[in-house]
Amino acid sequence: MSNINVGVVGYGYWGPNIVRNFFANAACTLKSVADGRQERLNLLAKIFPSINGVKDAEDVISSPDIDAVVIATPVFTHFGLAKRALQQGKHVLIEKPMTSSVAEADELIELAARKGLVLMADHTFLYTGAVQKMKEIIQTEVIGTPLYFDSARINLGLFQPDINVLWDLAPHDISILTYLITEEPESINATGISHTRNEVENIAYLTVNYSSDFIAHFNCSWSSPVKVRQTLIGGNKKMILYNDLEPSEKVRVYDTGYSHKTEEDKTRIMVDYRTGDVFIPKLSSREALAGVADDFIQSVLQKKDPLSNAQLGRSVVKILEASQLSIKQKGKEVRIK
Amino acid sequence: MSNINVGVVGYGYWGPNIVRNFFANAACTLKSVADGRQERLNLLAKIFPSINGVKDAEDVISSPDIDAVVIATPVFTHFGLAKRALQQGKHVLIEKPMTSSVAEADELIELAARKGLVLMADHTFLYTGAVQKMKEIIQTEVIGTPLYFDSARINLGLFQPDINVLWDLAPHDISILTYLITEEPESINATGISHTRNEVENIAYLTVNYSSDFIAHFNCSWSSPVKVRQTLIGGNKKMILYNDLEPSEKVRVYDTGYSHKTEEDKTRIMVDYRTGDVFIPKLSSREALAGVADDFIQSVLQKKDPLSNAQLGRSVVKILEASQLSIKQKGKEVRIK
Amino acid sequence: MSNINVGVVGYGYWGPNIVRNFFANAACTLKSVADGRQERLNLLAKIFPSINGVKDAEDVISSPDIDAVVIATPVFTHFGLAKRALQQGKHVLIEKPMTSSVAEADELIELAARKGLVLMADHTFLYTGAVQKMKEIIQTEVIGTPLYFDSARINLGLFQPDINVLWDLAPHDISILTYLITEEPESINATGISHTRNEVENIAYLTVNYSSDFIAHFNCSWSSPVKVRQTLIGGNKKMILYNDLEPSEKVRVYDTGYSHKTEEDKTRIMVDYRTGDVFIPKLSSREALAGVADDFIQSVLQKKDPLSNAQLGRSVVKILEASQLSIKQKGKEVRIK
Amino acid sequence: MSNINVGVVGYGYWGPNIVRNFFANAACTLKSVADGRQERLNLLAKIFPSINGVKDAEDVISSPDIDAVVIATPVFTHFGLAKRALQQGKHVLIEKPMTSSVAEADELIELAARKGLVLMADHTFLYTGAVQKMKEIIQTEVIGTPLYFDSARINLGLFQPDINVLWDLAPHDISILTYLITEEPESINATGISHTRNEVENIAYLTVNYSSDFIAHFNCSWSSPVKVRQTLIGGNKKMILYNDLEPSEKVRVYDTGYSHKTEEDKTRIMVDYRTGDVFIPKLSSREALAGVADDFIQSVLQKKDPLSNAQLGRSVVKILEASQLSIKQKGKEVRIK
Repeated sequence: MSNINVGVVGYGYWGPNIVRNFFANAACTLKSVADGRQERLNLLAKIFPSINGVKDAEDVISSPDIDAVVIATPVFTHFGLAKRALQQGKHVLIEKPMTSSVAEADELIELAARKGLVLMADHTFLYTGAVQKMKEIIQTEVIGTPLYFDSARINLGLFQPDINVLWDLAPHDISILTYLITEEPESINATGISHTRNEVENIAYLTVNYSSDFIAHFNCSWSSPVKVRQTLIGGNKKMILYNDLEPSEKVRVYDTGYSHKTEEDKTRIMVDYRTGDVFIPKLSSREALAGVADDFIQSVLQKKDPLSNAQLGRSVVKILEASQLSIKQKGKEVRIK
Repeated sequence: MSNINVGVVGYGYWGPNIVRNFFANAACTLKSVADGRQERLNLLAKIFPSINGVKDAEDVISSPDIDAVVIATPVFTHFGLAKRALQQGKHVLIEKPMTSSVAEADELIELAARKGLVLMADHTFLYTGAVQKMKEIIQTEVIGTPLYFDSARINLGLFQPDINVLWDLAPHDISILTYLITEEPESINATGISHTRNEVENIAYLTVNYSSDFIAHFNCSWSSPVKVRQTLIGGNKKMILYNDLEPSEKVRVYDTGYSHKTEEDKTRIMVDYRTGDVFIPKLSSREALAGVADDFIQSVLQKKDPLSNAQLGRSVVKILEASQLSIKQKGKEVRIK
Repeated sequence: MSNINVGVVGYGYWGPNIVRNFFANAACTLKSVADGRQERLNLLAKIFPSINGVKDAEDVISSPDIDAVVIATPVFTHFGLAKRALQQGKHVLIEKPMTSSVAEADELIELAARKGLVLMADHTFLYTGAVQKMKEIIQTEVIGTPLYFDSARINLGLFQPDINVLWDLAPHDISILTYLITEEPESINATGISHTRNEVENIAYLTVNYSSDFIAHFNCSWSSPVKVRQTLIGGNKKMILYNDLEPSEKVRVYDTGYSHKTEEDKTRIMVDYRTGDVFIPKLSSREALAGVADDFIQSVLQKKDPLSNAQLGRSVVKILEASQLSIKQKGKEVRIK
Repeated sequence: MSNINVGVVGYGYWGPNIVRNFFANAACTLKSVADGRQERLNLLAKIFPSINGVKDAEDVISSPDIDAVVIATPVFTHFGLAKRALQQGKHVLIEKPMTSSVAEADELIELAARKGLVLMADHTFLYTGAVQKMKEIIQTEVIGTPLYFDSARINLGLFQPDINVLWDLAPHDISILTYLITEEPESINATGISHTRNEVENIAYLTVNYSSDFIAHFNCSWSSPVKVRQTLIGGNKKMILYNDLEPSEKVRVYDTGYSHKTEEDKTRIMVDYRTGDVFIPKLSSREALAGVADDFIQSVLQKKDPLSNAQLGRSVVKILEASQLSIKQKGKEVRIK
């Protein structure tokens, strides 16, 4: 198989970006796109007259012409579509979050493994220059032992009717956490509030606990007058500030740290601080989604595991699922290990 | 009594600011300052040769010359010193947080009431131009019904050996919350981590829950490479961004909001957003601590209740006490009503 | 004439934006686009298969099908192409700067007037929400009497081989100045430097002088490591800060001012300052170039004068021409009235 | 002479800072301060009871007890006071700008040389961590050949009655230019405007020209609603952004550059750009004025030339004097070499 035929299911908010990037990928051919809404198919036809637009997802999933399927539909439909596609022998890339539950994720993972198919979650942020640079910085121990991950992703709207703000916004940051920090989390606590009387939280806070003294925290809101996309990652040697709203200076590495020692008489802890230079590395400006498309296609061609693989997608779902449980239990700790 | 004689106990980090402001207040006379460390008394003598420096707090507290005592010592000493001063018939102003526990606060409040003395907590931020302006904005219903309060107060150091980061940093923001939002909180959840193996958290997160759908959240850290002092206060009409690091434009009022309605078939919630102008009011630039000194002295003179009164100080301690309990119980909800 | 047939000459850097906006304008039909480079025509065909791509500008300009021509080619070709189009009876919209000299501008203006054709310069910025809001603010005397206009437009690259940095970057700000400030300038001074040994300045400074005590200054550079797009407009009542790099808060109105009076003994001037609130108005987010296309087409249909008319285009060229002369004369004042 | 006795003339806006720093310097004794205004002497007595306050400058300048005099009075008085002090055999430190004219500066320099006395100008900024770091960066050729210096120093007020905005604000930036860039300037151009009808410009622009292709520009204003303190220094290898309003990250070094080559047929210049990492060095946070005091006292003790020496002070005055002439001649180039 030297050229992969790709079909896309869903041409909504994110679909056009998916289509544009797979269309531009030289190692595959984007054959068909399914969306139930005629106006979306019209839009597709206008921009990409060469692509076959169909109303029924089944016409993509079951087509013998198609080798690989990209699923970009609402979350609650991911599992059904992906399962059907895997059953038809298609490789599958699913929008984040991969599924609505860990059980669904497990079933898909097992099915893909059995059939020898690639199953991948589209955690686009992993393919950004910023996250790739941070991975390199952390892997080469520039920041030393990681101590915390603290993220804020807040803005006004777009309220989702079916999933809360954590399921909507946190997958980006949880996938980054999962990719950068190799230690497995132990438990989570989450709190939140719904201002729309529909049990769908529009503001939520999530703490992820570890058996080491690492901690992660996520602040997500659809109700902020200002847009913030900021993460702090502290190590015992250096610290990173990742501000995704900066046009080019997204990652700043602070030569800042603290260390502690117990005084001789053991009654006091002494803490030393250190501040130093700041370094802002140049980042690759390649479009992240082009990297996703390339990784998916190359994983199919080379029978390799993609970077944003199904296990990572499952880890994200596990934290989201637990967070929902914790909110309903008034912030109680939920173990996830 | 037309002129109040004031004594200060503690001339450490905050003491010089206390002394400078009471020294400058025309309605009182700063008579003596106690600190056990000779080098602090030497420093006092150099800057304020007219003030009597003493080593023993008792020489301030029990002096018949002194009408009112300001206590600016470590938190664990507040109760003992304040109780002794009240017993000696002195009016008392205590640094934030007022006491180490609600029980201590209650005992002081009862004692002060019985003796007809002013008991006040130094929540300096309430006297800033920014907080006064926000109070006015919220009281006149410019932002409509308050929906959330979200605060971050993070920086590098100064690790405290005996109190965690919430007891150190959060009193500022909790006092602002308590002052601005009249609804009483119902419960709290808190999580955190200690990186110094001494059970003193240097990073902590606190959610405060209410019976209405209002929510408050606090992010406190001694371990951030960057300094952040930022609070968002959302209402159903407008929203406030309060950035205390801005030299003059600390308060921004966004004409931003969202409203929701249930669709006729009741299956969906529709949410509308609105963004509009931003307004940055001019703020009073009077030093906040001068306002504290003035309110304390005038409360003594006029037998009135100060703005930063002991009840407010107690409310702050109640939340801090509960947060400590919640952290130890792995984030479990702790009721405070 | 109820629908205008439009042709575009030049499909380089700005051409695709021109084409996209005229293509989307319901009152006209974009018939053909000329560009001498086959790869540009291929790109056009890929995105807009319905538009006729031709190599020779003459096939657009002389086509009997075409009512109006948009010229988006290098500056030195504007005059020849526009003259030929006007001679063929076409309405003409020319990219900024309109021509290479005032003499050329005058000849085109005279020709268009004689033939009763619309001649318009594409000063896109006039159609932005920010400039429209500032026009409204200044026209309604919110800022009082304008006192100064101070603009910086600096970034790294794109060095032009044939025109200096003022001809490249300053037309935006000069057109804004000309649109906002109705007083006619008297003279200019300009200084600058070329770091490429080709007499094409990559850094230049321009002062525009008036018979009143208004002053304007422009700082333009292709050699800055940071991008700045900032203009201050001061009045005797209020002042405006216009930062085009802000995503939405581009215009800030400061209630700041100063007034002066002569002391009684006439020996001293006393100056009072005042600072107050800041107001950030919400701006229209309509794409400016859509407004340009609309104004051009409606001016043709309604035989009206567009906002960015040829006289304004000529005023910009007059200042640019004089600035070149001043730089060559080592900053000497050049009169332009 | 192992301890220098210092006297200060002038206890106005800057005087208290001078007094505080010389008071704290262990190698000298601050004996007396002269100011004609009793309320200033009262303020001095309150803060520094040990210093002798006198009304007549002559009591400082002619006192046999005094070895060195600091002159912190209005500019027009600098020459007379400094000349008298030098004649009395005192070492002299003069506030910036050193004198009102180059002729005055020359006379003082000649007199100090003849008498073997230290004559120094207080260009405080040279002693900041930021300027010291930039000197090191430029001296070690990190930025390569310097190409430009572009500075903006604007804010609201404080209008001076006797000197224009260049004499008031530009000395800081001109002294930094003179210190960092060793090439001597050839000529200047300046433009400006007075909004107070007293011939004292409150907005002014200054270009400094060199025989190489280096250029410097200064934008000074008392009439801006926002405060800006920003300088760009470009080299052919790297570029510096110096923002003095940043609390700690004042100096940013951009690995940004451009180079040019002539195409083979010599008809075109090709320019390449490069952008890379950004580096923010940690800066010394020592108070600059403490460095000034130390350098003055050590120069007296060690008979060495201070860093902010009289020649540098004279170079600043030369540019200011020429700028005044250029403004009056409508921006005409004024040679200064």
